[in-house]
Amino acid sequence: MDATGFAYADRFAKAAPAAAPRFTGLPKFNFVGGHNDPGEIPSAELAQAAAAVIAREGAALALYNLGTGPQGYGGLRDFVADKLNRHRGTAVDRDGVLITSGSGQGIDMVSALLIEPGDTVILEEFCYQGAINRFRKVGANVLPVPVDDDGIRMDALADLLATLKGQGITPKFIYTIPTIQNPTGSILPLDRRHRLLELARQYGVTIFEDECYADLIWAGGAPPSLYALDPSQVIHIGSFSKSLAPALRVGYAVADWAVLARMIAMKSDGGTGALDQMVIAEYFAQHFDAHVARLSAVLADKLQTMVEACEREFGTAAQLFQPKGGIFLWMKLPDAVDVRRLTDPAAKESLVFNAGPDWAVTGEAAKSYLRLCFGLASKAEITEGVAKLARICHEVTGVPVFSGNVKNG
Amino acid sequence: MDATGFAYADRFAKAAPAAAPRFTGLPKFNFVGGHNDPGEIPSAELAQAAAAVIAREGAALALYNLGTGPQGYGGLRDFVADKLNRHRGTAVDRDGVLITSGSGQGIDMVSALLIEPGDTVILEEFCYQGAINRFRKVGANVLPVPVDDDGIRMDALADLLATLKGQGITPKFIYTIPTIQNPTGSILPLDRRHRLLELARQYGVTIFEDECYADLIWAGGAPPSLYALDPSQVIHIGSFSKSLAPALRVGYAVADWAVLARMIAMKSDGGTGALDQMVIAEYFAQHFDAHVARLSAVLADKLQTMVEACEREFGTAAQLFQPKGGIFLWMKLPDAVDVRRLTDPAAKESLVFNAGPDWAVTGEAAKSYLRLCFGLASKAEITEGVAKLARICHEVTGVPVFSGNVKNG
Repeated sequence: MDATGFAYADRFAKAAPAAAPRFTGLPKFNFVGGHNDPGEIPSAELAQAAAAVIAREGAALALYNLGTGPQGYGGLRDFVADKLNRHRGTAVDRDGVLITSGSGQGIDMVSALLIEPGDTVILEEFCYQGAINRFRKVGANVLPVPVDDDGIRMDALADLLATLKGQGITPKFIYTIPTIQNPTGSILPLDRRHRLLELARQYGVTIFEDECYADLIWAGGAPPSLYALDPSQVIHIGSFSKSLAPALRVGYAVADWAVLARMIAMKSDGGTGALDQMVIAEYFAQHFDAHVARLSAVLADKLQTMVEACEREFGTAAQLFQPKGGIFLWMKLPDAVDVRRLTDPAAKESLVFNAGPDWAVTGEAAKSYLRLCFGLASKAEITEGVAKLARICHEVTGVPVFSGNVKNG
Repeated sequence: MDATGFAYADRFAKAAPAAAPRFTGLPKFNFVGGHNDPGEIPSAELAQAAAAVIAREGAALALYNLGTGPQGYGGLRDFVADKLNRHRGTAVDRDGVLITSGSGQGIDMVSALLIEPGDTVILEEFCYQGAINRFRKVGANVLPVPVDDDGIRMDALADLLATLKGQGITPKFIYTIPTIQNPTGSILPLDRRHRLLELARQYGVTIFEDECYADLIWAGGAPPSLYALDPSQVIHIGSFSKSLAPALRVGYAVADWAVLARMIAMKSDGGTGALDQMVIAEYFAQHFDAHVARLSAVLADKLQTMVEACEREFGTAAQLFQPKGGIFLWMKLPDAVDVRRLTDPAAKESLVFNAGPDWAVTGEAAKSYLRLCFGLASKAEITEGVAKLARICHEVTGVPVFSGNVKNG
């Protein structure tokens, strides 16, 4: 039998996705996805935490869910509640927290809880690709609401809701990343949060709040989470992928029990990986504030390097959306640039970035945008990679970028 | 806002499952599910393994999938390949292994890969509830094939396939647990394995082989896996839930690349929990054979206690299917006993078991069967619990069980 010898490949379901390619390694200039900085993984402390919690509680691994039920490891739910209460304005306890296998599972569950085919949902015009795709997959009609430097424009949202109401449509939810928006990095001010909740109440629409990046904020903090401001209207999710490590597949949902009880009923994975949960709880119960402060400072510094590189290499051709935290820089190139034309030439030089159309509800409208992750790459790779990208942009599109780059290219 | 204050509970999707109850702890006499023996978790060694692998490779946690692609942690894939090659007769390497988030994810993926609504699949008449439910959920017509003490009866399978062919039906797959069948604990002999593969070839039907319990065999071993005998016809899955710990959510699939490449494309969870994978690999690379030998001996001893208790308490009223490994005892009570009538009275005395109808393709046909897990309970709990169950059975159904029990009850 050789490696392509399966006898019944002609009987695969028509709806099954196409074959994945063999993984051949990561590109050198890797600005895609949500990777983090390998130098900021506290390996020694995590090793210590792992040894301690396993020696103390390892016997419980013999039971599904550590014998503590489907909401997840109690120590981690305690930590999530404490973190949100201290930093995000909530008043929750472990019973109000559901641990999920990554925040993607939370998105899948909320989708299944609320969306029926043909339902309308509202998203920020530029938005997390994984959310857009998951909502569409279950048959939602996904509508964009315009954003500015402070997140959702409430005048536009009010207009959209009124227009929909005129058509007899009540959206199932407004999905928003109010605190370090993905991809723009904005923070929704308090007055807009109140207005958003007021509009939700007026039109009878659930708010689905994703705070996956809210632990990484440069300075000045952020207003309370939407869930904190009105738990009766909001389903809140978060993640440890950005604050600690994405290879750990642990997220959480916080919502009224009426919501959590339905989500728990959908959790068919036999629980979230126990060691990932136990080690996060053990480490973060002691070190969360110090860790995210240090990590945020490192990321802010890398962002600075990326911003400087973009200004140097693209000059006025690039419009940068200065993020207030997180790991992404969202930028716009001149209208004449379709960034999708840059993807293949860049990949040939081992450089990858996220094309705007994948991060927008109306893809074509974001054809000149791109998202660069500055979490993984070193400062030297950022500097060299941005110069490379500017050169490729110039070579492919002819659009003049800053002359210094073209000479250096 | 109180705990039932969600404003939009009336807008949940109709297809969303009913609310889960609050978890209130595990019953004392817990014979359900696939829990393992807490005393057999090697906590000290796992702690050591965790500390070592995190200190050595922790930095990679910063990358999704540890930067090694969607098939899973390389060290664990190496171990799976080595284990299967040494114990199950295969010849695979890490490229032929896909790590899954529990074997349930493997079942979901194979379902999505092969099943289209209305398709027929064939299962052992008594079979893993999770598989039956998952196949039905995606629209399969699930047909039973009779089993005996040696697994699937090949004469019955040949008849079924011929009958289906006469109706123009080619089943999408035969799902089988050939090595320590769930729930009967049987091992399919080599001649039947060859005959099964021959029938599959003749009728053009994929074999979906689940070997979740094959690491726990009392004595004498087992014939090679079906995948080892014919990789061109078989999709193989397995798990670490039984050989190590079910709170670790790690399983694997082994199949031709044409199959794996499609399954990888379906893996939308961002990877399987990294620490669970890393710690299993680190510990089992050194200690697998010794661990499963010790665990199997402990389980065989607990089974002996359970068998003796059943013989003592139920006498000839119980027909026991002596398992050749694993963690389950499958038994039949007299036809007059519908075990579903015992469920509530038993639960009131903090005793839970799996009713036969949940573990059978044609539920009603298994109304007098039940499955007892002897993995979790202590020998004292097994002895006391079986006596309790026999007494409840007598009280509820009036069916005479062994008189010694009734007097003691």
